[in-house]
Amino acid sequence: MVNEQKSPQAMGTGPSRRPYPFARRMHTTPKSFIREILKVTEKPEIISFAGGLPNPGLIDVAGLAQAATDVFDNDGRAALQYATTEGYFPLRRFIADRYKKCLGLDISPDDVLITNGSQQCLDLIGKILIDPGDRIAIERPGYLGAIQVFSLYEPAFAPVELGAEGPDPAAFEKIVSSGDGAKLFYGIPNSQNPSGITYSEESRKACADIIEGTRTILVEDDAYGELQFAGKAHTPMKKYLPDQSILTGSFSKIMAPGMRLGWVCAPRLIMDQLVVAKQASDLHSNYLSQRIASRYLEEADLDAHIRRIRAAYREQADSMITAMRDGMPDGVHWTRPDGGMFVWVTLPDGCPAMDVFTGALKKQVAVLPGIPFYVDGGGTNTLRLNFSSTDTGRITEGIERLSGVIRSLCR
Amino acid sequence: MVNEQKSPQAMGTGPSRRPYPFARRMHTTPKSFIREILKVTEKPEIISFAGGLPNPGLIDVAGLAQAATDVFDNDGRAALQYATTEGYFPLRRFIADRYKKCLGLDISPDDVLITNGSQQCLDLIGKILIDPGDRIAIERPGYLGAIQVFSLYEPAFAPVELGAEGPDPAAFEKIVSSGDGAKLFYGIPNSQNPSGITYSEESRKACADIIEGTRTILVEDDAYGELQFAGKAHTPMKKYLPDQSILTGSFSKIMAPGMRLGWVCAPRLIMDQLVVAKQASDLHSNYLSQRIASRYLEEADLDAHIRRIRAAYREQADSMITAMRDGMPDGVHWTRPDGGMFVWVTLPDGCPAMDVFTGALKKQVAVLPGIPFYVDGGGTNTLRLNFSSTDTGRITEGIERLSGVIRSLCR
Repeated sequence: MVNEQKSPQAMGTGPSRRPYPFARRMHTTPKSFIREILKVTEKPEIISFAGGLPNPGLIDVAGLAQAATDVFDNDGRAALQYATTEGYFPLRRFIADRYKKCLGLDISPDDVLITNGSQQCLDLIGKILIDPGDRIAIERPGYLGAIQVFSLYEPAFAPVELGAEGPDPAAFEKIVSSGDGAKLFYGIPNSQNPSGITYSEESRKACADIIEGTRTILVEDDAYGELQFAGKAHTPMKKYLPDQSILTGSFSKIMAPGMRLGWVCAPRLIMDQLVVAKQASDLHSNYLSQRIASRYLEEADLDAHIRRIRAAYREQADSMITAMRDGMPDGVHWTRPDGGMFVWVTLPDGCPAMDVFTGALKKQVAVLPGIPFYVDGGGTNTLRLNFSSTDTGRITEGIERLSGVIRSLCR
Repeated sequence: MVNEQKSPQAMGTGPSRRPYPFARRMHTTPKSFIREILKVTEKPEIISFAGGLPNPGLIDVAGLAQAATDVFDNDGRAALQYATTEGYFPLRRFIADRYKKCLGLDISPDDVLITNGSQQCLDLIGKILIDPGDRIAIERPGYLGAIQVFSLYEPAFAPVELGAEGPDPAAFEKIVSSGDGAKLFYGIPNSQNPSGITYSEESRKACADIIEGTRTILVEDDAYGELQFAGKAHTPMKKYLPDQSILTGSFSKIMAPGMRLGWVCAPRLIMDQLVVAKQASDLHSNYLSQRIASRYLEEADLDAHIRRIRAAYREQADSMITAMRDGMPDGVHWTRPDGGMFVWVTLPDGCPAMDVFTGALKKQVAVLPGIPFYVDGGGTNTLRLNFSSTDTGRITEGIERLSGVIRSLCR
């Protein structure tokens, strides 16, 4: 379970007039560390590397506005009514077709369920698969949003150390093959959040081989697959495990996060259960936005749009890396991302990320300490830096200030 | 638990190449009966009383289109970005102000969380409150959507017989006060789904008195409070139990269901937990739609719009009741709704609703057997009829045919 203090609220014994009988699953849920930090860092004068927002300048507002007008003009009444749980069929078909075209994956529109961003996929997956105490293998460091949502299903997390090429194979095999194994393995093979690491082709195959034939289901979160700077797709692990994997995706990073549109692809029997869970959760995802997205994708050149995002993020990542190379003292290490939105920084031993966070904030720079990405403690000397939401000039300025803070704190 | 056969899929032992290790909570989840029936009844030649759709003719498409244009023109980039979990503040303030104005409820915008329709409120409530085995009091018959979503948290349902004035007080007191009592009571005091019954003022006060001081939390689902035909609001039960109740609402019936916007109001400590669960579930609700709704509510005359909906539904309900009075044989009984969207029909003993369903479908009329609204079996001679989605002429025609079927089957 998540190694975190129980909050008084969660125990129902806070400073209230009455103690509420919260469910057991709430007692061990981590309070959102990011939430609290982001509240501090939202001021415009702060250079923030703490969040995980796409660059708003790269949202095609005019294109989406036109798509919305078209939907309202041509089929507004239907777009505003209740709709099917599975989602708007032409949107599901677009997703299936794009998997075929870009990744060579043989996925039918019937294998695609539209969700509220890919975050909801994780909730539905947890709901249909995780019993209390089930072992869940997850990367170390792991995606905080996954840790939060899975925690509510009371699993036992089994973290797998993430190296430069992917999960440590010996540790992974030990978790998946020993004892009861693991109910699922959750991973982000492309530009992982928080580390920015992309699994090598060899690691993908090796991990799939370890999983194959066990009872473990792979949950492959591909939020950043379209944002590989080189524009070359890696092999999705689903290709090796078609019947033993669930693949999630999102329009948040390539279209617009505020529309909350993601999807999950799963084998038919798993899909049947996901649809039951989705219907119980909220009947269906926002139909108006599904229609606007589908219309937009008919008209827009998505490939060209994604190339623009990739080029911009590559430039922003380069600015960050260059500034770090120029300013960071010896003993500080960082990943060099091939895509996505994050750089992962490891400070010298004994240099607490929380002190760097506090010191940087005094210089109007926000960073995210890596601690909440560790389900078993650790990471006290790590930071996650986001480069996608800040323009290059401010990235350089922000990293200069951060480097100064680290130089003064970590000798 | 729900009295239903376990489906082979849910058991993970279907005709698959591999059995998937689904969580225990999925084993007892009822397959959506409505889902299956609605698939049959979606054809345009069918007169359908089976669904629960608002009348699409009463959606203000032009007003919402203009609001969307305004949002895209004035603040599109922000409306398409990630946003706060709690929801767009001006929309939350609108909801709080309207509670003050219409119901005299003292609710702050901070007490309001925006959700994906009110269905998601029930999922979040289940998540933060229900442990497996917890007793959940629910009306008998009860709202199917609530039964489905709560089932996933593995409660023990304690149904409370619903009479013409509200829940049976003796039965209710016995459940709430005896033994461990009940974790929560879920009810729809205004124009209940499926029965169409509205609790009397006396029943509201009596139920609140029974709950007060126990550990039971009231979950008051007010999807239809704005749709009382007389335009006069009833006292919300939350007024009697401000710190011991959760109130849910929805824009689906007064604006547009496809935008999936609902909300939940709760005491602060419960709200803290709802926000944690909401963030884990899907970060936040569709922000674009929240902005469009908020803009629409600035410009539109919502009260006038709701008066139009009430007048239309009243006329549609009258058509249904008149046609039933004219055509139904002796021994058939029905509720006379003061609002909402449903009429509840009780057939003579020994006249199975499933036979009526099948017979009516042959005459191109779809009805919904009441069985899935009973968590403990029963209801085999009941039907739910929806009047909101069908125009008056077709209502009369449909009820004539349905009466003929019942006359021939139930002598």
